[in-house]
Amino acid sequence: MSSDVSVELLSEHSCFGGRQQFRRHQSAVTGLPMRYALFLPPRPRALLVFLAGLTCSEETFTMKAGAQRLASELGLALLMPDTSPRGAAVPGESDSWDFGLAAGFYLDATQPPWATHWRMESYLLNELLPEVQAELGLDAARTGISGHSMGGHGALTLALRHPGRFAAVSAIAPICAPVDCPWGRKAFAGYLGPDESLWARHDASRLMRAQTQPPFAGGILVDQGLADIFLLEQLQPEALEAACVAVGQPLQLRRHAGYDHGYYFIASVIDEHLRHHAALL
Amino acid sequence: MSSDVSVELLSEHSCFGGRQQFRRHQSAVTGLPMRYALFLPPRPRALLVFLAGLTCSEETFTMKAGAQRLASELGLALLMPDTSPRGAAVPGESDSWDFGLAAGFYLDATQPPWATHWRMESYLLNELLPEVQAELGLDAARTGISGHSMGGHGALTLALRHPGRFAAVSAIAPICAPVDCPWGRKAFAGYLGPDESLWARHDASRLMRAQTQPPFAGGILVDQGLADIFLLEQLQPEALEAACVAVGQPLQLRRHAGYDHGYYFIASVIDEHLRHHAALL
Repeated sequence: MSSDVSVELLSEHSCFGGRQQFRRHQSAVTGLPMRYALFLPPRPRALLVFLAGLTCSEETFTMKAGAQRLASELGLALLMPDTSPRGAAVPGESDSWDFGLAAGFYLDATQPPWATHWRMESYLLNELLPEVQAELGLDAARTGISGHSMGGHGALTLALRHPGRFAAVSAIAPICAPVDCPWGRKAFAGYLGPDESLWARHDASRLMRAQTQPPFAGGILVDQGLADIFLLEQLQPEALEAACVAVGQPLQLRRHAGYDHGYYFIASVIDEHLRHHAALL
Repeated sequence: MSSDVSVELLSEHSCFGGRQQFRRHQSAVTGLPMRYALFLPPRPRALLVFLAGLTCSEETFTMKAGAQRLASELGLALLMPDTSPRGAAVPGESDSWDFGLAAGFYLDATQPPWATHWRMESYLLNELLPEVQAELGLDAARTGISGHSMGGHGALTLALRHPGRFAAVSAIAPICAPVDCPWGRKAFAGYLGPDESLWARHDASRLMRAQTQPPFAGGILVDQGLADIFLLEQLQPEALEAACVAVGQPLQLRRHAGYDHGYYFIASVIDEHLRHHAALL
């Protein structure tokens, strides 16, 4: 268990020789108790943050992806945050499955009524991640980030917005150009307001195009299923691909015939993401 | 998709080069539509039936165990039935989490009001399994059975009660002596009535003791966590162990310090069960 007395261990399960923990801590940034899951392999030598997608929680990837087997072998600790604050009782927070609860989009909201609690970016970067890194004795050179769908957007944008904080980045079926897709436009309008010039700061493809040199020398790994019903309208990996070409960023974008947007796809490719991070961290 | 027009494909997901299907068919035995999950590896060369535990459905093991990765590699098709009939609206069917819905105990009930629909043993042996075996062109010599908790009880008892139907058997945290544990006594009293002499026919340890020769030459593999809160009162692997010793049945009973009753344990040992079956089938 964490030595930090403010962290509550909700449950712990032996798993592949390590420990799968579910925890809760009080966040000063969101002003709420936040849950997260942490997989601790027998000998943690690096840390991978995995951000989940819309409708998910800290439990989804933890339970469905089958990542612990290889993570244990590679010595990768896995940190799975929740996807939004919970318990704030903000009016309208549960009206949509793609906005509000479980739809934090890994940014700090600036608009009322969201700005008070919906501060996932600051929570992750300034609170949760430093706490876990300190506990494990692992620094940024040993920390990677990945995610699925909305969480893939989160992984790419947080890595691009915070140079030096993550030494490896990958994504599975990420939202690559949220400024140009319905999910992103709804989230950005609600959380960031009507000034679209501010939205681009949270759009992976636009952030990539704004780079003066390739930010990830080790390359970016992205997997995308071609039977994913959200591919054309919401995900747009071709926008990220074009941006990477424009700035010379190595990108391995793998398109998989027949695979959909769900966890059977994630499980099918997660091992290669773990190996990508383990090789760079 | 199945060539049998009476089988409805509810969903299909590409997974590790194979297909994870969820299906529904009308069962003449239970008189109800029944759901099941089927994982089809690229080249199915054997079939493993996995029976889930109390409160589970055809989706639980399918989603949480992480079995498809190695099953695909080994050419094992995986068949996950539901854990009880559903939709009968039998009075009291959802009063308990350990009796009625999701608690069929893989037997044919003889007592009203259960006897009409709660016929999981006949459904599995005479209906679902023959249908899937015919579809895949795999016979009993290529079919194994395993399960967790109540499903471990089901795997052991169905294999013992139906010689020649399964060429390999294993279990994870099985209910080994249901006649002597609260879960089993409640289920048997409700489904089979008060005559306890009939109960022994569905008790793996008692069935094993009644064998005149070791029924499974290839051995039985059982994994059990020692931090499992149900171990002492409900599971009793020592009863199965003693029965196997008494009849000379090879049993590999592996006790794992620190592991609990949940799917993080199942995931941690499932690969060795898949290898056990693949080696014998």
